[in-house]
Amino acid sequence: MAKLSENRWGKSEIRISKIHRSDGSDDFSDLAVQVLLQGDVESAHTGGDNRAVLPTDTMRNTVYCLAQDHLTRDLEAFASFLCDHFLDRDVTRAAVTISERLWSQAGATGFIGGNSERRTARVAKGAGEIGTWAGIEGLVVLKTTGSAFSGYPKDAFTVLPETEDRILATSVTATWRYSTLPEDATKTWETARETLVERFFTDWSASAQHQGWLMAVGLLEAVPEIDRVDLHLPNQHHLPFDISRFGLEDRGTVFHPVSEPYGDIGLTVTR
Amino acid sequence: MAKLSENRWGKSEIRISKIHRSDGSDDFSDLAVQVLLQGDVESAHTGGDNRAVLPTDTMRNTVYCLAQDHLTRDLEAFASFLCDHFLDRDVTRAAVTISERLWSQAGATGFIGGNSERRTARVAKGAGEIGTWAGIEGLVVLKTTGSAFSGYPKDAFTVLPETEDRILATSVTATWRYSTLPEDATKTWETARETLVERFFTDWSASAQHQGWLMAVGLLEAVPEIDRVDLHLPNQHHLPFDISRFGLEDRGTVFHPVSEPYGDIGLTVTR
Amino acid sequence: MAKLSENRWGKSEIRISKIHRSDGSDDFSDLAVQVLLQGDVESAHTGGDNRAVLPTDTMRNTVYCLAQDHLTRDLEAFASFLCDHFLDRDVTRAAVTISERLWSQAGATGFIGGNSERRTARVAKGAGEIGTWAGIEGLVVLKTTGSAFSGYPKDAFTVLPETEDRILATSVTATWRYSTLPEDATKTWETARETLVERFFTDWSASAQHQGWLMAVGLLEAVPEIDRVDLHLPNQHHLPFDISRFGLEDRGTVFHPVSEPYGDIGLTVTR
Amino acid sequence: MAKLSENRWGKSEIRISKIHRSDGSDDFSDLAVQVLLQGDVESAHTGGDNRAVLPTDTMRNTVYCLAQDHLTRDLEAFASFLCDHFLDRDVTRAAVTISERLWSQAGATGFIGGNSERRTARVAKGAGEIGTWAGIEGLVVLKTTGSAFSGYPKDAFTVLPETEDRILATSVTATWRYSTLPEDATKTWETARETLVERFFTDWSASAQHQGWLMAVGLLEAVPEIDRVDLHLPNQHHLPFDISRFGLEDRGTVFHPVSEPYGDIGLTVTR
Repeated sequence: MAKLSENRWGKSEIRISKIHRSDGSDDFSDLAVQVLLQGDVESAHTGGDNRAVLPTDTMRNTVYCLAQDHLTRDLEAFASFLCDHFLDRDVTRAAVTISERLWSQAGATGFIGGNSERRTARVAKGAGEIGTWAGIEGLVVLKTTGSAFSGYPKDAFTVLPETEDRILATSVTATWRYSTLPEDATKTWETARETLVERFFTDWSASAQHQGWLMAVGLLEAVPEIDRVDLHLPNQHHLPFDISRFGLEDRGTVFHPVSEPYGDIGLTVTR
Repeated sequence: MAKLSENRWGKSEIRISKIHRSDGSDDFSDLAVQVLLQGDVESAHTGGDNRAVLPTDTMRNTVYCLAQDHLTRDLEAFASFLCDHFLDRDVTRAAVTISERLWSQAGATGFIGGNSERRTARVAKGAGEIGTWAGIEGLVVLKTTGSAFSGYPKDAFTVLPETEDRILATSVTATWRYSTLPEDATKTWETARETLVERFFTDWSASAQHQGWLMAVGLLEAVPEIDRVDLHLPNQHHLPFDISRFGLEDRGTVFHPVSEPYGDIGLTVTR
Repeated sequence: MAKLSENRWGKSEIRISKIHRSDGSDDFSDLAVQVLLQGDVESAHTGGDNRAVLPTDTMRNTVYCLAQDHLTRDLEAFASFLCDHFLDRDVTRAAVTISERLWSQAGATGFIGGNSERRTARVAKGAGEIGTWAGIEGLVVLKTTGSAFSGYPKDAFTVLPETEDRILATSVTATWRYSTLPEDATKTWETARETLVERFFTDWSASAQHQGWLMAVGLLEAVPEIDRVDLHLPNQHHLPFDISRFGLEDRGTVFHPVSEPYGDIGLTVTR
Repeated sequence: MAKLSENRWGKSEIRISKIHRSDGSDDFSDLAVQVLLQGDVESAHTGGDNRAVLPTDTMRNTVYCLAQDHLTRDLEAFASFLCDHFLDRDVTRAAVTISERLWSQAGATGFIGGNSERRTARVAKGAGEIGTWAGIEGLVVLKTTGSAFSGYPKDAFTVLPETEDRILATSVTATWRYSTLPEDATKTWETARETLVERFFTDWSASAQHQGWLMAVGLLEAVPEIDRVDLHLPNQHHLPFDISRFGLEDRGTVFHPVSEPYGDIGLTVTR
């Protein structure tokens, strides 16, 4: 009596990043891809026969593997290529939707993701801990080179490979305390922001900890009114996606950005 | 046996926007303010005696009323002024924290809030509705003048005052369909984005509906490959905060941005 | 050359709560309503003629005013009544969508909104502040009576009316420290949760501060292993919506829940 | 001139689920764990020397591996065990914070996560598609057994292992259309909800598609006024965490819940 009127299955929120390397400078793509298929899959629904049900995990792997050769800045071309690929399988319709997060280029290998930046200010008076703090939240920065992580201790639970060159990305939360109020608080804030950005993109680092230290020291040097810096640098991991598992040459340009879990790095630096 | 070891009370997420008008062009502040007080309020906790409990609603009103004269771009100065104001009441400590959302100036009275902009692409092939769509999500734009709303029907439930000049702010979601694929999809997307932004800031409108129409028509004119435009323009209301209730002159620069509810405007325009 | 193919306008996220009072006990509705209309409004889009554009602010007011007499637990009946009301205006189609947040009844006038409750545990060892803490986050509770707020100081910015009976709603975050580890940590957590809930619903309070004190004292009494309680009680305001502005009798059952700003109450109680 | 005043590093949002199997019925834990360490790591910050920096990836693996034997319902005991483990490494302080999402047991192997459930209603009148729909959003259900996925097509990008028994979890969005209005809309909604829940927990399924079909058919059978059911069943994957990589026996009770990407399953069933 009941009949299947419509069906669709697919994978949503396939997050993929890609470095487009070229001689002078890198370009960077950060995408969330959705694949939705339709097919003659009535028996899968009514009888549990999966012979026509392409697994959504396969769709995900397909997106990563085909991205290495076929993903350029032309998103429509990549979506079209993926549709054609899936139509070669046992489906009647393929729809691919891509949502690209936009980053601003900052130098040859640096990018700023302007998605949630806020200036903060805090004043406390009266009893207890009092003073004036300024800060920044949600300053999202990423560099495609200039960061390493190696030489760390190993134990039975270590599988992380050492690396001398990786993507480093974080959403900076910085708070600094003024021992003396600067004359122009807004201009001083702009100097502080520029310093944080420049030290992130310019200084090579051996770890997020090391990078944070260089940023904090830079802040103390650039703004004499600051006597204390608190930095929170959650590590927004971009994991290499291992394409060689699928018999393909892995050229190291395709990554899997993950939201959870994240490395949680904090430090406080004083004069 | 139990004793009150610490206390704090206040108001969080006091959202306030202010137009800093000047001759050549406007400036714009968009803040979330938190006020937190401490005091000798043990009897309020243990016995329900509220004589020393400044209501959090009063804190909120205070922030709006004092903003008209005292809020500049120097956030620390405004936070400090508020602390002093509250310390004149019956409290032992005042802390004010301000978080400013950053907007980029676009012309004399226009602002772009770059917080969540995404480029979208969608291709569908096979059976059913097929084609290529491109679009943009989270393009947040605001103008301090150049938009009216009047002449609408009234009934028993109408209290909205008519206005010939107001803040208009929205987060544009636009999707357009290509009848022919453009040669350079990325360049075409940039042209489309610029057109949407320019028509929003340049064209006077009698309503969000009118503004949307002008933007859609602009898109059809600018990009010949487009044959259909879908626009979603949620109205991000900035309500005038009535300062005259408190016996102060109201100069029309202080607003209360509200997230809920929002006007929900959509339109589809074809050739 | 361009033509308006589709249009829709309306109001989304109209948040409304209503107490359904009866002799033995209250019932409670917590809704988000969306109204979307379509009409012959081509001239509004193309020429800025608003004569057929019912303001979305009027839609909002309509929902609150009609809720007093017509909103029961039958959501479909209320949505249908609203559609009929708007079809009497100058529109060709009306669609009303309601989303109800579900609360569990807890006694005659108490409700628990089970939407985000989490048990927390924290252990720190080594240098610095060490110990074992347990807690709860996102315990959302609301009572329709049994809470007052009056007797507070007034100044030039005070407009809040004093009340001896109001809705009190909060999302409890509680953290407590164990001086001695309880034998059964899970059972002890359940006792703690029950105590917090019972003291919120059973004890009359003169303020959120007073309610928090009674809850903290209850916890210290119920669980001897606890030596310190931290409570955070953001006040989830349900503001009375003034229906009398529209010439209707106001029976005090219709409220406007607001997310921003919120009263921010915290306290620490020790033995 | 600058000195490191404080440091902390760790891993946040380590999401882990565990089935506590017993004869009569299963129990289920769903946790987010944060590990934060402090140590004598000044040279890591100032000089990039990582010899004392335990990688946050190792912390993550440690949590999964130790969970198999040591995670019970006593969260404080597990947190304490983890602290002791990390204090054996080169650190001066370890803090572990656990946040547990609470599920309600529903039968021997079923669980309902009551975190966001909403009842929906929708009425449209006038021109175009009109009618009355009811529905539910955010009905989160999980079963530890009674679901398989095998017999699907393989290609070069397939690595998913076939399974005859897995965790199946989803957040049900269901919308149904009434051809005739039921007499008691609220009671009918409750019947519909109970039917969806029962068919999810009781019926064995060969896929999410199969499970959805059985739920939709159950709804059509239970409520004669319904003539169409739309179901959206995003697959909330709980991936087995491979403990055998670390030389440990893998007993199949420890899982890694992932938010992104997710399988996206939809179907429409009519009479």
